[in-house]
Amino acid sequence: MSRDYIHGYDPRETQRLQDQAGTLVDLLHSDTSYPEGHTVLEAGCGVGAQTVTLAANSPGALITSVDISADSIAETERKLHAAGVRNVTLRRADIFDLPFPPASFDHVFLCFVLEHLPQPIAGLHALKKVLKPWGTMTVIEGDHGSAYFHPDSEYARKAIRCQVDLQAKAGGNALIGRALFPLLREAGFDQVRVSPRMVYVDAGKPGLVEGFTRKTFTAMIEGVRSAAISGGLISESDFDKGVADLYRTAADDGIFCYTFFKAFGINSPICADCGHVGRPAE
Amino acid sequence: MSRDYIHGYDPRETQRLQDQAGTLVDLLHSDTSYPEGHTVLEAGCGVGAQTVTLAANSPGALITSVDISADSIAETERKLHAAGVRNVTLRRADIFDLPFPPASFDHVFLCFVLEHLPQPIAGLHALKKVLKPWGTMTVIEGDHGSAYFHPDSEYARKAIRCQVDLQAKAGGNALIGRALFPLLREAGFDQVRVSPRMVYVDAGKPGLVEGFTRKTFTAMIEGVRSAAISGGLISESDFDKGVADLYRTAADDGIFCYTFFKAFGINSPICADCGHVGRPAE
Repeated sequence: MSRDYIHGYDPRETQRLQDQAGTLVDLLHSDTSYPEGHTVLEAGCGVGAQTVTLAANSPGALITSVDISADSIAETERKLHAAGVRNVTLRRADIFDLPFPPASFDHVFLCFVLEHLPQPIAGLHALKKVLKPWGTMTVIEGDHGSAYFHPDSEYARKAIRCQVDLQAKAGGNALIGRALFPLLREAGFDQVRVSPRMVYVDAGKPGLVEGFTRKTFTAMIEGVRSAAISGGLISESDFDKGVADLYRTAADDGIFCYTFFKAFGINSPICADCGHVGRPAE
Repeated sequence: MSRDYIHGYDPRETQRLQDQAGTLVDLLHSDTSYPEGHTVLEAGCGVGAQTVTLAANSPGALITSVDISADSIAETERKLHAAGVRNVTLRRADIFDLPFPPASFDHVFLCFVLEHLPQPIAGLHALKKVLKPWGTMTVIEGDHGSAYFHPDSEYARKAIRCQVDLQAKAGGNALIGRALFPLLREAGFDQVRVSPRMVYVDAGKPGLVEGFTRKTFTAMIEGVRSAAISGGLISESDFDKGVADLYRTAADDGIFCYTFFKAFGINSPICADCGHVGRPAE
């Protein structure tokens, strides 16, 4: 991508960027589709970034999306209305105090939520309770420790480490993606399978250079600048050099790599006597 | 995998481990197959670790495998003989002084070679010379900076860094995988495409736990112990803790991630006047 490339003025180019942003949505969500009539709980929908996609991929499913923030629910409502989505019910609720009877849902879907919970296993337990026997749990998380790039840069790695440390200080875990397999198993899910979804960005993919390397990942790191500096985690000049080096990876000869993880598990009933997984009633 | 699991005694288990080691071979090589009668140069075949697979996937191609070491050529010869491979000619040769006329080969194949060259672009240039116009270049490399794991460990990261630093000191680059796209473009290849091949290992994949996490990656890091310690890169106890932490990632709740990169480019003739890519003669 040359320096005088102006993003968004050429409609064909705009379309290409949107298509490649769509590639990322496909990468994470295209293999999640719930059957007609099945009930799905989306826990921690936030501002609905994933909700529209979730609903579009499962048009016959009955989706309930909850979030602890009333503002986020209002924003999600606006998004769903604008997109004409009609199979989602919104509700303000706390994952740790859900207003649903046990075994209410056929499926639970969780995207970029566990990374914020001080006790992710307790969160998974709470969600497992409202899941029917044999119901499925799907979890998607990123992992900031999976980011590496060319040219490599110690400053860029330090700036990313600030984000990881700040999230840890807030009780979260920005490296949680890699740990989904043991987390779901510890929370009692059965038949756990995890698949990594790697985003590899080179200059042959201008939509991802712009939409992922620059506007998603680097912008996110840039967003913790004042917290990192005022928290004494890094000097101003080191942080700025780190961010500049991250933008440098978006140049014509730069490379950026990041991996999301998607986990799937089943709420198999366990025999209280012998501990074995039960079988569905015939 | 429980602690009393004994690897290799149960024939079914042995088969399963072999199958999963085969998965890794498939991951790297299954999409490389050269047509009947095409000539292929495998440059830097080493002890023939990839040569048997290369030949098996392209039984009709005429493969010439070269290496700078006569001992390695002899070992490759033994492997090919044992496997009954008949479409490979072996020859001792230096990549920078190849005994072939220009434009001798339809394809060049290079696996785990660039990482050892102080001047990888010069190496690609030398190989490009013996490639016919419109011939293809295929390159596979690892990237030790792509390794991350659960539980995370600063000591394990330090031990890996020793291997990276030692390889750099020897003139190589253990982080070269991520840079294949700009390297092939700088060497003048056209239509460069790179695809990452991520190896994700959890306890659900015992063959990879044993065959990759333990016996490939961690064993390789363990192999630089004395060089790292005598070179003053790390203390004995830090290195040993790092290696122990890498083995720890092979436990039932551990995770290991690593990414190989595979690049493909075309030796398109470039017009000496205008610099544009030529078209094949009609």
